[in-house]
Amino acid sequence: MKLTKYLVLGAALTAIPALGFAQEAAEAVDAVEATAADGALEALNTEMVFIFNTLLFILGGILVFWMAAGFAMLEAGLVRSKNVTMQLMKNVALFSLAAIFYYLIGYSIMYPGDAWMIEGWLGALGTAGLEPVGVTAELADDVSYASTSSDFFFQLMFCATTASIVSGTLAERIKLSPFLVFVIVLTALIYPMQASWTWGGGWLDEAGFSDFAGSTIVHSVGGWAALTGALILGPRIGRYRDGRTVPMPGSNLALATLGTFILWMGWFGFNGASQLAMGTIGDVADVARIMANTNTAAAGGAIAALILTTVLYKKPDLTMVLNGALAGLVSITAEPLTPGLGLATIIGAIGGIIVVFAVPMLDKLKIDDVVGAIPVHLIAGIWGTIAVVLSNDEASLGAQLTGIIATAIFVVVASGVVWLIVKAIMGMRADQEAEITGLDMSELGMEAYPDFSKG
Amino acid sequence: MKLTKYLVLGAALTAIPALGFAQEAAEAVDAVEATAADGALEALNTEMVFIFNTLLFILGGILVFWMAAGFAMLEAGLVRSKNVTMQLMKNVALFSLAAIFYYLIGYSIMYPGDAWMIEGWLGALGTAGLEPVGVTAELADDVSYASTSSDFFFQLMFCATTASIVSGTLAERIKLSPFLVFVIVLTALIYPMQASWTWGGGWLDEAGFSDFAGSTIVHSVGGWAALTGALILGPRIGRYRDGRTVPMPGSNLALATLGTFILWMGWFGFNGASQLAMGTIGDVADVARIMANTNTAAAGGAIAALILTTVLYKKPDLTMVLNGALAGLVSITAEPLTPGLGLATIIGAIGGIIVVFAVPMLDKLKIDDVVGAIPVHLIAGIWGTIAVVLSNDEASLGAQLTGIIATAIFVVVASGVVWLIVKAIMGMRADQEAEITGLDMSELGMEAYPDFSKG
Amino acid sequence: MKLTKYLVLGAALTAIPALGFAQEAAEAVDAVEATAADGALEALNTEMVFIFNTLLFILGGILVFWMAAGFAMLEAGLVRSKNVTMQLMKNVALFSLAAIFYYLIGYSIMYPGDAWMIEGWLGALGTAGLEPVGVTAELADDVSYASTSSDFFFQLMFCATTASIVSGTLAERIKLSPFLVFVIVLTALIYPMQASWTWGGGWLDEAGFSDFAGSTIVHSVGGWAALTGALILGPRIGRYRDGRTVPMPGSNLALATLGTFILWMGWFGFNGASQLAMGTIGDVADVARIMANTNTAAAGGAIAALILTTVLYKKPDLTMVLNGALAGLVSITAEPLTPGLGLATIIGAIGGIIVVFAVPMLDKLKIDDVVGAIPVHLIAGIWGTIAVVLSNDEASLGAQLTGIIATAIFVVVASGVVWLIVKAIMGMRADQEAEITGLDMSELGMEAYPDFSKG
Repeated sequence: MKLTKYLVLGAALTAIPALGFAQEAAEAVDAVEATAADGALEALNTEMVFIFNTLLFILGGILVFWMAAGFAMLEAGLVRSKNVTMQLMKNVALFSLAAIFYYLIGYSIMYPGDAWMIEGWLGALGTAGLEPVGVTAELADDVSYASTSSDFFFQLMFCATTASIVSGTLAERIKLSPFLVFVIVLTALIYPMQASWTWGGGWLDEAGFSDFAGSTIVHSVGGWAALTGALILGPRIGRYRDGRTVPMPGSNLALATLGTFILWMGWFGFNGASQLAMGTIGDVADVARIMANTNTAAAGGAIAALILTTVLYKKPDLTMVLNGALAGLVSITAEPLTPGLGLATIIGAIGGIIVVFAVPMLDKLKIDDVVGAIPVHLIAGIWGTIAVVLSNDEASLGAQLTGIIATAIFVVVASGVVWLIVKAIMGMRADQEAEITGLDMSELGMEAYPDFSKG
Repeated sequence: MKLTKYLVLGAALTAIPALGFAQEAAEAVDAVEATAADGALEALNTEMVFIFNTLLFILGGILVFWMAAGFAMLEAGLVRSKNVTMQLMKNVALFSLAAIFYYLIGYSIMYPGDAWMIEGWLGALGTAGLEPVGVTAELADDVSYASTSSDFFFQLMFCATTASIVSGTLAERIKLSPFLVFVIVLTALIYPMQASWTWGGGWLDEAGFSDFAGSTIVHSVGGWAALTGALILGPRIGRYRDGRTVPMPGSNLALATLGTFILWMGWFGFNGASQLAMGTIGDVADVARIMANTNTAAAGGAIAALILTTVLYKKPDLTMVLNGALAGLVSITAEPLTPGLGLATIIGAIGGIIVVFAVPMLDKLKIDDVVGAIPVHLIAGIWGTIAVVLSNDEASLGAQLTGIIATAIFVVVASGVVWLIVKAIMGMRADQEAEITGLDMSELGMEAYPDFSKG
Repeated sequence: MKLTKYLVLGAALTAIPALGFAQEAAEAVDAVEATAADGALEALNTEMVFIFNTLLFILGGILVFWMAAGFAMLEAGLVRSKNVTMQLMKNVALFSLAAIFYYLIGYSIMYPGDAWMIEGWLGALGTAGLEPVGVTAELADDVSYASTSSDFFFQLMFCATTASIVSGTLAERIKLSPFLVFVIVLTALIYPMQASWTWGGGWLDEAGFSDFAGSTIVHSVGGWAALTGALILGPRIGRYRDGRTVPMPGSNLALATLGTFILWMGWFGFNGASQLAMGTIGDVADVARIMANTNTAAAGGAIAALILTTVLYKKPDLTMVLNGALAGLVSITAEPLTPGLGLATIIGAIGGIIVVFAVPMLDKLKIDDVVGAIPVHLIAGIWGTIAVVLSNDEASLGAQLTGIIATAIFVVVASGVVWLIVKAIMGMRADQEAEITGLDMSELGMEAYPDFSKG
């Protein structure tokens, strides 16, 4: 930079004899000046954008972490009291395993450009992180984006969410260890591989597939893995008898409602931070738009389920309303930005309607989904992925269907293989007596509510 | 930046003949330069302020959303177990209806200047939002403020809070559908109309009425609507017998405590983000001041109720302590900024004292408020609105009383009319047998805790 | 911006008959210009940094506040149902007292340079705050740091956390009032005095003791106070019989799990905001690094406890897994920044292993710690403080041990004296009948779950 002065000085000096030169000098100065002033301003602006984006990922990551608690409460509330401890255990363990295996393997698979995995395993036992401590603009992986640690933190939570979806469907009958082995494969390999197709800049991204925050990439993937598992595992003992579905009501609807509110809250981070930037007026306003749309889609799903269950069954059904809200959230996840508030409400409401029809349909097929995760995450996820074309001009139905189908095939096959291997080697299902007693006492020797007598 | 060249040109030109001019030139440069640099700087600063303010509304909106979960848990914990499912249903449904009807009608009524409602209904079914996707400084509604979507998102949550307050008072006896019809009118019309008087720049604002985050505008409004409803609905069967109040203890104090903590947390967004800006040193420091005051007022309310119930009844009363904390929060809401920490603690403590005296007083009047929402939100709300004059020099007692009374009259009359119409057309109250059985089985056919036998 | 001067210089030079004067003029311009342009940029940058840092403290403070709810739920879930109301009461009351007494006394002791306490008590009854309303760059206590109110808000929550740790260990047998008296002394004096040694810039800080977010300063201090109390108070009736430990299972493992998730979430604020700054690329990236490390340490602790309890007892133990996650969090708290992800996971995992071994060890010593707070907060806290030397080159084992031992001696002696005085004056322990009945009915006359019959 210091050289410039001589240049300007020289330019100015040379300019003396002739007036015309003064103008030239001024113009030269202008150019340099713009560089200099803009340079300092730009540096500040770059720094601010980096901070805002990183903060967005941090806040988003914390909110999506919170969804792990939401799934735990939702599922603990919707299983029978004899299986609550096990359901809590599965949720804490699956999140923890996801955290470790996404770090060890998954993140590197999802973003294959960065070959930090192998280096990382060794270095990370010391002080090597994704970026050094006190990273500077020069040393940052991408100073125009955000801290790599913040990206990792945020992406990790999406991977864990996928695993959370599976646990609810298979509740009350799958043993702990085969479930956790599946979670390891899901979070280390299956989720990251298909996620790299779109979010890692892979072939689906190039094919024009559009899935803003993961109606397909997160929710349907969890849903397909859950469905495959449910088909291989079979329904709970006594669930389907004489062609009828025997109700097995959840033990704690207050917990289930709390879980739904937690998920709803966490979804603001899930969708909002998927904007991936908030360092400009346009980006932060988009994040706000996403917040409003996400909220209204959930409301639409809840009210649609409330009205529909009242019409169909005369009595509104709280678990359907909760799942309706969640289905609304899943439905808007593939495109929470471009719809207007009215369209977002309707997209969510259709998600709620899907749940009300899909839950009994699955039961007719004798697919036993304890918490309704398949309707909420898989079917509403497909709907939401298709609904992108309603508001996003850049999306095409062909590309959306390609993404939906490719993901379906991959996840069903991959999950199916893993489930079958797990089943062959270690068995999936608790034995009959254990299931009837409840997994809490039979597998864990611990009741969730030991002080209260069972009704 | 472009000006610089002319100034250099000018400087060069003017400077030639006489030396004295060089100094003048330098001074001219200085002035122009300041303008130029300031222009670029100002643009950056404007952008930063916009981002910070929008982020404040987003974070505040999420936190106030979370209060909906807090009310749900508080109320589910304070009703008897036979009415828990219904109370959960009401809370999920009221929030969802508030989200939809505040969008459809309320927001436009509250901010009458922006006639986006009609346009919006049509456009919002496509991609039209409050502001376009990727809005720029030029297209933003108010680049000196914040994203309109973020404002909508934040304001919506306040409207929903008002409805949450009503559900607790009327619990265990009002049917679902008349309650929800009332919620629609409250969130589409009653709340927005009176809120526009102050926050929409209406006559109460001009009259000098000061209500920072809504002790009156949100809390007392909910409280008046609840009181009017309670008077028309009457007490629960068996609540008042032989001149005595029959205790009907809440079924789950852990949930009630959780709900209180959630509300306390959410209140940081409620009061803090009502600063409406955090893009300057003064604004963000004020937000921090509000956080500290809000927290200490809650603590003051809790400890005052703890001490007072110990003195009065020998045994401290947990539900009073919880409501004391909430009353402390309501009390500080009208002016969480100007008081010192000591004054804020005292304002909150008086709120806690109010609750301890008002709860039995209401029972003497045979006004049956299941969760204590009238003492907490209405009476402490009035106190908080008056307490503004203790620290805010710009507030006058006259203006504060004008606001309190005008709001009271409007909400009582409007709510009363709506409740009476609802009662006449669809009936408000569950029939006697349903109430004794509990609304969960009679109206919803679903128990909240089906696995546990009743004591 | 700096280039502009040369252009002016050039302009001036061209102009001139007498060269020397032009140079002087240019230099004058230079000075003014540098002041003006750099001044403006710097002012903006300073403002942004101040806002970001203040926002970090606000967000961190809210998250650490949320930990108070986490402790309440964890402890309410781990005590027997007959003591749940009391445990909730203690948690709400201890937080409220901490808020008030840290304001009245503690904060001034912890940061002795600022003698605002006495002034504050009087002024704070009016409008005097830590900084005036709408503070400016000139009036701010430290414009290069953050708003003093935000610092107070954040620091307060750490003080309250220390008190939360004590309540779990002493549950089910200590009376309310002696416990609350101890909380007052702990939060007004004991915590602030030892915290000032390091965080107030005192002798431990000068001795090189390094405790990033408080493995020792917060967690071990709470743990030592709890241990001292437990020794003086003695175990619950019937806990140790014939050389065996009688299991007294917690009444609600769903609540305990919720509490753990809440604490895990809150810890992101606890550790992340202890970076104390996020206004530069380096600082915000460090905050993100801390988030990732904090999360993986918790995961490591949970999985280690899961594996170890499965190996040792054949059945994985949910309460151990929950405490393992918490121990992982405590372990990483003294140095959440410098370790790589692998090392952070291992540090957390060792915390989880510590818990599994320390819980039965305490029982062998007949030290009755109802929720396992001593293993989690004290022993894992010591481990975490030592583990700093594994990744932080600036830390020395000697300094770490000095901090651990000095804190131990001070807190054990101070707490012991206070507990003994409290015991002598008012008694610590509920009488035998009250303990057997449960503190809820005997001390508070209120059950937490009155509708459910006991098993």
